[in-house]
Amino acid sequence: MFEDTVKKAQEIMKNRGLGAIFLHPGVNTYYFTGLMKASFERLLTVIIPDEGEPVAVVPGFEVESLMKYSKIKYRDVRGWSEDQDPYILVGRVVEELGKSKSTIGIDGKMEYIFFEGIQRALPGARFIGAADVLNELRLIKSRDEVELMRKAARIICKAIKAAFESVSSGRTEIEVSEVLHGEIRRHGGLSRGYGNVFFGPTSALPHPQSSEKKIESGEIVLIDVGAQYQWYFGDVTRAAVLGQPTEKQKRLYGIVLNAQKTACEAVRPGIEAQELDRTARRIIREAGFGQNFRHRLGHGLGLEVHEGPYIVEGNRLRLRPGMTHSVEPGIYLLGEFGIRIEDDVAVTEKGCDNLVVDEFPKDELVII
Amino acid sequence: MFEDTVKKAQEIMKNRGLGAIFLHPGVNTYYFTGLMKASFERLLTVIIPDEGEPVAVVPGFEVESLMKYSKIKYRDVRGWSEDQDPYILVGRVVEELGKSKSTIGIDGKMEYIFFEGIQRALPGARFIGAADVLNELRLIKSRDEVELMRKAARIICKAIKAAFESVSSGRTEIEVSEVLHGEIRRHGGLSRGYGNVFFGPTSALPHPQSSEKKIESGEIVLIDVGAQYQWYFGDVTRAAVLGQPTEKQKRLYGIVLNAQKTACEAVRPGIEAQELDRTARRIIREAGFGQNFRHRLGHGLGLEVHEGPYIVEGNRLRLRPGMTHSVEPGIYLLGEFGIRIEDDVAVTEKGCDNLVVDEFPKDELVII
Repeated sequence: MFEDTVKKAQEIMKNRGLGAIFLHPGVNTYYFTGLMKASFERLLTVIIPDEGEPVAVVPGFEVESLMKYSKIKYRDVRGWSEDQDPYILVGRVVEELGKSKSTIGIDGKMEYIFFEGIQRALPGARFIGAADVLNELRLIKSRDEVELMRKAARIICKAIKAAFESVSSGRTEIEVSEVLHGEIRRHGGLSRGYGNVFFGPTSALPHPQSSEKKIESGEIVLIDVGAQYQWYFGDVTRAAVLGQPTEKQKRLYGIVLNAQKTACEAVRPGIEAQELDRTARRIIREAGFGQNFRHRLGHGLGLEVHEGPYIVEGNRLRLRPGMTHSVEPGIYLLGEFGIRIEDDVAVTEKGCDNLVVDEFPKDELVII
Repeated sequence: MFEDTVKKAQEIMKNRGLGAIFLHPGVNTYYFTGLMKASFERLLTVIIPDEGEPVAVVPGFEVESLMKYSKIKYRDVRGWSEDQDPYILVGRVVEELGKSKSTIGIDGKMEYIFFEGIQRALPGARFIGAADVLNELRLIKSRDEVELMRKAARIICKAIKAAFESVSSGRTEIEVSEVLHGEIRRHGGLSRGYGNVFFGPTSALPHPQSSEKKIESGEIVLIDVGAQYQWYFGDVTRAAVLGQPTEKQKRLYGIVLNAQKTACEAVRPGIEAQELDRTARRIIREAGFGQNFRHRLGHGLGLEVHEGPYIVEGNRLRLRPGMTHSVEPGIYLLGEFGIRIEDDVAVTEKGCDNLVVDEFPKDELVII
């Protein structure tokens, strides 16, 4: 599988005249080699030439670890020692590959400090962003990838249920978040490990931080959590209320639900991403809350919690089978509360495979 | 405090002829503005001009959140809407600042895809890395910063003790890791949330992953964990053994301990980073394990778990009061086990303030 993706990348590289691509440690090294590594300050890169096996340049003491976790055959693995300049080694490796005068693609996730060193080491090369090459491949998921995402969504739904059940008068956002993430891990998932639970007015902010705030009766509990199973993300949002919901809370939930279901039903091959966004936005606008739905309808997900396709006005990309993305309209009343409902879907030959809804129905605002 | 650091940066910028610096969301926006944000795919940047207040360019729906979490006054906060190209806005803002023909510094942590957009938006500017400007300031910690790191180290030590106490026959690395991170959070710390516990042969690898491996009697348990308190890191490593240690385990522990204590005693203003590295390395080499200590002696820490000063051969930087770094020699026998002992120290006017050792003495290999 990994070697196949390298070959596919090389075809695209040849069409675009790229001599090599430098990968940054993380999702892209995983996608092409099976190696998932956090990026630290030491240069670690996988160089994909336009033909043949990749070459890795890594800290010397990481060579065994790279071999252990990688799933591909390398042409060469070159370690640099702690007192060496790794960019001299980079220059030598690219020279040996015969690519030092070519156009070199840079992983869009590469930190500038590494790019700076690579650029200095290769004065005869021309550099361009390689995000589009890498993303083009990652955009279409295999059946196996979709199943990992369904599993991730299932784990998240179990954890959200447990977290809602743990809410009672006086509990804090951080305490409920602890239940949420503990359940994710207990079921074999991986998450950032904190945050993602918001009470009352905080639920109206788009990317807030969980705090020591205690819940009060009648407040909305919004849980929005992305978590991984075998590196693939699910991302789900559900809303609940402690005690009896107000008419306003129920009405807004109903509007968001209608928009969200209508959008899920509209998912099919050939529809433009922006058209899907409009489908949901129209319903919210007609209900009088257009100004309160201030973000796009959704984002792709896979190895990253946000990746293409972005379901947003202006994106004329047509959906294709194997694309996976969130559908997450919301209405936010600053100072009061916010409601968002988020499922993850896979585009199929015929329409839409909702990866979430069997796990946690969304038909009513949950009452705790 | 944050406004002071902006002014200090501006002095350095003027000396180096920089018209503006673009910050990437995360540690550097925190250091200069109080805003800690994870980086996602949407452009969010703080631009520090060479005089006056910074300007923020952020997704439109993040404006309130930025104002809520920032601790400085901005000259301007500019939001871009979901269907706009944020780089057009960047070009306009830099034009208004009168810096579109100047030399622009780029945060070393900025992802290439954002740099690419900024570069396209400013065809008349020249770009250089700004990591050295930003790091020069962050290299010297205030008394308050040192105290946050001491608190982080204290939390980590409590968690390591609890994790060691939770080890018994048949426990897995992941189960013990769950205890470790739960305790870190219970004491108010923040950690990546998984991993950091290694049994037996895995302890000989430099950056491995915790797994479902069960412990066997006589195996080394190595715990190496970096965690934050109010965003500042501690980073501590301790070793234990389940059951009776072998003579070889005890002997190696003694050698590493001697090297580590000797290096801690050598920490003082004026010593070169490389000389400190040699102090520990000499002891391990003379004991016959020079080839088995394959990484530098230590790294700085603060808002990042690895930052300057790097305690490594070739680094002639002289330590100064206020610098903080780890001291962590190790000996690794591939296929058998590894021993590493890590404390964090602050350089003082007179010598060394060990931020860890009162919390968790290291004088003997812990027996579980």
